[in-house]
Amino acid sequence: MTDTSAAGPLAGITVVDMTRVLAGPYCTMVLSDLGARVIKVEVPEVGDDARHIGPFINGKSAYFMSLNRGKESIALNLKDDEDRKIFEALVDRADVLVENFRAGTMEKLGYDWETVHARWPRLIYAAASGFGQTGPYKTRAAYDMVVQGMGGIMSVTGHPGGPPTRVGTSVGDITAGLFTTIGVNAALYQRAETGKGAYIDVSMLDCQIAILENAIARYYATGEAPGPLGARHPSITPFEAFETSDGHVIVAAGNDNLFRKLADVIGKPELVDDPRFSTNDLRNDNQPALKGILDTAFASDTTEAWLANLEGAGVPAGPMNNVEQALHDPQVVHRNMVVSVDDADAGRLHMAGNPIKMAGVADPDTRGDVPDLDGHRQALLKELGLT
Amino acid sequence: MTDTSAAGPLAGITVVDMTRVLAGPYCTMVLSDLGARVIKVEVPEVGDDARHIGPFINGKSAYFMSLNRGKESIALNLKDDEDRKIFEALVDRADVLVENFRAGTMEKLGYDWETVHARWPRLIYAAASGFGQTGPYKTRAAYDMVVQGMGGIMSVTGHPGGPPTRVGTSVGDITAGLFTTIGVNAALYQRAETGKGAYIDVSMLDCQIAILENAIARYYATGEAPGPLGARHPSITPFEAFETSDGHVIVAAGNDNLFRKLADVIGKPELVDDPRFSTNDLRNDNQPALKGILDTAFASDTTEAWLANLEGAGVPAGPMNNVEQALHDPQVVHRNMVVSVDDADAGRLHMAGNPIKMAGVADPDTRGDVPDLDGHRQALLKELGLT
Repeated sequence: MTDTSAAGPLAGITVVDMTRVLAGPYCTMVLSDLGARVIKVEVPEVGDDARHIGPFINGKSAYFMSLNRGKESIALNLKDDEDRKIFEALVDRADVLVENFRAGTMEKLGYDWETVHARWPRLIYAAASGFGQTGPYKTRAAYDMVVQGMGGIMSVTGHPGGPPTRVGTSVGDITAGLFTTIGVNAALYQRAETGKGAYIDVSMLDCQIAILENAIARYYATGEAPGPLGARHPSITPFEAFETSDGHVIVAAGNDNLFRKLADVIGKPELVDDPRFSTNDLRNDNQPALKGILDTAFASDTTEAWLANLEGAGVPAGPMNNVEQALHDPQVVHRNMVVSVDDADAGRLHMAGNPIKMAGVADPDTRGDVPDLDGHRQALLKELGLT
Repeated sequence: MTDTSAAGPLAGITVVDMTRVLAGPYCTMVLSDLGARVIKVEVPEVGDDARHIGPFINGKSAYFMSLNRGKESIALNLKDDEDRKIFEALVDRADVLVENFRAGTMEKLGYDWETVHARWPRLIYAAASGFGQTGPYKTRAAYDMVVQGMGGIMSVTGHPGGPPTRVGTSVGDITAGLFTTIGVNAALYQRAETGKGAYIDVSMLDCQIAILENAIARYYATGEAPGPLGARHPSITPFEAFETSDGHVIVAAGNDNLFRKLADVIGKPELVDDPRFSTNDLRNDNQPALKGILDTAFASDTTEAWLANLEGAGVPAGPMNNVEQALHDPQVVHRNMVVSVDDADAGRLHMAGNPIKMAGVADPDTRGDVPDLDGHRQALLKELGLT
């Protein structure tokens, strides 16, 4: 067997990608970053909806490009017999099929799991959808913001008494994309052991519940639905943003030892013996009082000065970076987390890299071309012996 | 081979879990939900820090319990020779080791990747850390909020001109846990094909960059760092929360067809022909004007009435649920996304279920017991032949 490990653990895996916009394309992007070959099957003429969502650079969607670099594209009308033959020839050679239609769409096309599994028993079939393939909402469409609202994350994000606040990136889609990827990879492992395909049903709403984390524990422990807490952690104190003389500093003193170090850094070692602040639980109960003391301290110097002092003392702390600052942070640059694609129309485009770093696996600072709609038709037909 | 598929795709896999608090334990929880056996190796007497983070029920951390259901626990002092023998006997039988120490800690213990790989070449070794195993910040500790601030997500969350806003759940940890899980599963697949172990290095900060999504595209397309947008999507309009007569409704009209349906529902079909609103790009440019019109419309009736109308017309929409409402939503309940554990001390505890639903895999509404610190020592020593 050829050692293809430098190309990633999924080298040799072929994914037929029937997804669009975000949750599905994010999943297949991660699979691609892990070495899989991803072939997008798009609707003729229109293609992936994300091709039409801005921002645009020279008429091309930077949003679409950042999610679909390195994939191939073929446009197929799955209600047309000729195109169905091509599709089925693709699936013949595929290991994984990912779709993010509403429940029922694949069935109408004659490609529901039961039918597909009977014909391609080794195929792994992953369906990511707004609400899942079962239950009262299964046929409803969802977008990120609908599940952010329904799933509860918006109720714990923002400021007490303030207006509704959406998480600023599409965590509704992205977490569903990540859980779908986990399911696909687990199924690939299982297939390697058993030879059997698998069906994976991931719902965006379910994934929002899965990431509510300690908000669920707090609700069941107290019987009360937790509210938003601005810029602080609900159960760890101090763990929040403080104003400095020229901006903000984030301090995360997650245990008693770190709180001691923090008290030293701000010149108030006596805080450690204050009966209001001697344990995390007490600090959490007395957060307003402690915040008042810390606010006064941090207002006396700059963010840069405080970060140097906190870092020197080993207290976890950091700046509040905007996106430009984050992308140029020396650690982010060192970790190759901003990669580029040279596009014929849009020029050099930068986008997020792969956060799964693996020993011996190449992590190039460029990614493969962004496919034009149907751009790989001829090459694929030739490969499939259909020309 | 016995068919263990009902137990999940990772049935038969053993994970030695050296993690604590959140990113690592979240990863091993997902592995456990997929069928893996997870053995927590904890620091004697103190154990996982999360055991000491509230909320508490009868003295037990509901936070810890929700992340560690169904795992086993043994307390080992890895500077003690006897305990190291036990640890190594565990690794002898393990498929995966997950740790989330700061870079350098495993090396000091003599269990860095090179050493471990030489002795256990089939072992998959996953390291989740704040900043990764390389780069200028590699030895710094991080907590969720530090990477939320550094990674840019806080800069796009909240309201324009408003105070800093943390995403209300620990997306810094959770996304790192998910990417680590993806890496582990991909490596398990690769090992099944090649027999080789793998080293996975995931950084919480890297993962924040990976989920910035269209904020990165917007920055590179415009040269300006995007700011927070309250409760709306940056590139799709209308895609936001609106006030109704008794609360809020979230509407996500992600394309022209859905906008047409929305315009009909609110009795303003003429909006579709308005030159300000005829495409998504135009609607996005003229969002304030459109919001004014929609605000007036939605203020005229209740959330429930609007949801019924929008759902009837097929416009993606939803309520802004608090955590209690989300956990009791009929779809969430149907999908078995709230599971329980009966704990000897804390009683019946509810927590998030597994969002990766797989055909033929059991999805019970209960999970295994929460381990006491060192609670499985005797059973494990017996199993290892060390008693």
